[in-house]
Amino acid sequence: MLLCDIGNTSYHFLDPSGRDFKESVTTFNPQTIQERVYFISVNSYVTQKLQELKNWIDLSAYVSRANYYETMGIDRIFAVEAIEHGVVVDAGSAITVDRVENGVFLGGFIYPGKRAMQQTYANISPALEYSFNFDVGLDIMPKNSQDAISYGYLKTLYSEVSSYNLPIVLTGGDAKDFAKVFRDAKVEEFLIFSGMKKIMKKASLC
Amino acid sequence: MLLCDIGNTSYHFLDPSGRDFKESVTTFNPQTIQERVYFISVNSYVTQKLQELKNWIDLSAYVSRANYYETMGIDRIFAVEAIEHGVVVDAGSAITVDRVENGVFLGGFIYPGKRAMQQTYANISPALEYSFNFDVGLDIMPKNSQDAISYGYLKTLYSEVSSYNLPIVLTGGDAKDFAKVFRDAKVEEFLIFSGMKKIMKKASLC
Repeated sequence: MLLCDIGNTSYHFLDPSGRDFKESVTTFNPQTIQERVYFISVNSYVTQKLQELKNWIDLSAYVSRANYYETMGIDRIFAVEAIEHGVVVDAGSAITVDRVENGVFLGGFIYPGKRAMQQTYANISPALEYSFNFDVGLDIMPKNSQDAISYGYLKTLYSEVSSYNLPIVLTGGDAKDFAKVFRDAKVEEFLIFSGMKKIMKKASLC
Repeated sequence: MLLCDIGNTSYHFLDPSGRDFKESVTTFNPQTIQERVYFISVNSYVTQKLQELKNWIDLSAYVSRANYYETMGIDRIFAVEAIEHGVVVDAGSAITVDRVENGVFLGGFIYPGKRAMQQTYANISPALEYSFNFDVGLDIMPKNSQDAISYGYLKTLYSEVSSYNLPIVLTGGDAKDFAKVFRDAKVEEFLIFSGMKKIMKKASLC
């Protein structure tokens, strides 16, 4: 049995031993896998292809979508399902911030990911073409350009998220960078897989 | 006597009657003006051209740059000079946020302007290609994509700026949009010109 989180560029697998691995959406053939795979997918092309394969089971059918909003990505929903009380900060190409209190999803917002935002500043002016300084002081107003954009990107996000006074769970490809900003956050690389396991237990699939 | 704030695309004039007008940097010939013009300029090409004209007086020489940081734009410095105590939010192609307490500049940060940030979300995913909703509720977590990006852009900025507990002064081309978010802010369209007048008085130039 495998778990698989399918994005726009890759299949992200987790095997029962806790080992994860990725395969490219463009080159990987899902028919090569014989065992049962429980998956979620934000990739509609792949989702359609997988409907023909009986051993690939789409877990999206097992969550109550009514608790969420219509256009909310299924990966975001499964990250939220993983926690009972807290705020999920999923730092990837976009950063999604979702608030859950006592098992109830309260809503969430979308902020640009690191690379997208760096490009934004560079496009505004070549004078703002810097990498972000994730060690920028959050208690002192910046007095140089690199810190001025780093603070503008990171402290605004921090001020909003910390105002919820909730435990923060960090996930996504850039979680380690953001852990420098959200110092009390718990980093959970496999949060979506946790959500998948929780839903499978609820549905008696495992 | 005229005041002029020169940007990358235009000369922005203010005449003694308080009327303002703009001229294009590419087509306007500054030699056509005979009267005295006090100016600041972020446009190094224009600045150099104006050095030959005796009736164009660069006010940047009259501020103590030591109070600021080296790469800080002169327009930003003059906006800050205009106030004694408060936070200046200058909403243009970038948004600069500068904090001044009891006449002392404490530092500031840079956030993307409206158009740049809208493009950022659109580049991340076509599903995020929306105009910002400046009327988005700031007290309730979003539950649709347009509000999720509007809140992500606006509420994060709001949370940070409002945490200073200082009077907010809004200026720049997009000030009217942002006045919907910063409801207690004072909109001062001509803040830079106010700064210029203040510096001229200090230097006994008027």
